[in-house]
Amino acid sequence: MKFFAEINIMPLKEILDPQGKAVTSSMKNLDLQEIQHVRIGKHITLEVEAPSETIAKDKVDQACKKLLANPIMESYKFELHLISNAELILSQ
Amino acid sequence: MKFFAEINIMPLKEILDPQGKAVTSSMKNLDLQEIQHVRIGKHITLEVEAPSETIAKDKVDQACKKLLANPIMESYKFELHLISNAELILSQ
Repeated sequence: MKFFAEINIMPLKEILDPQGKAVTSSMKNLDLQEIQHVRIGKHITLEVEAPSETIAKDKVDQACKKLLANPIMESYKFELHLISNAELILSQ
Repeated sequence: MKFFAEINIMPLKEILDPQGKAVTSSMKNLDLQEIQHVRIGKHITLEVEAPSETIAKDKVDQACKKLLANPIMESYKFELHLISNAELILSQ
């Protein structure tokens, strides 16, 4: 079974996000001062081959812990969905 | 009214994603060879103050077009939700 995962990795709330702060202040110059509290993280998509959803979840979790996210500065969450055969054919 | 927006910005499918490719090959060294087709983009959250959802959507769309996304290389999509007073109090 093939699963598609969408992972969001964000800087922890307690941690300053200088890139987000810079973008927030740039909004004023673009006449978009209604926009505030910009925070910037990563959005990662991937495909994982696994015999069950539980195993697929575990694989994605390992990937986040070992490589994608830095747990000291970032939090992550992800969603998985099964890729149907129809979608596989379409994406080829 | 205050809205919370979650924006995903991804490299276009036609465009090579060298960071994603590098991460995909690193997965093998971590014994996670089941993980493939990693693509890396940005996840941005922000708050926008607007009199209606339509205006809030327009503001976020402008922010994406003018500053956050590069339309030549990236596509974006976003979701908005109204922040209730209860959530505002909790986040203070």
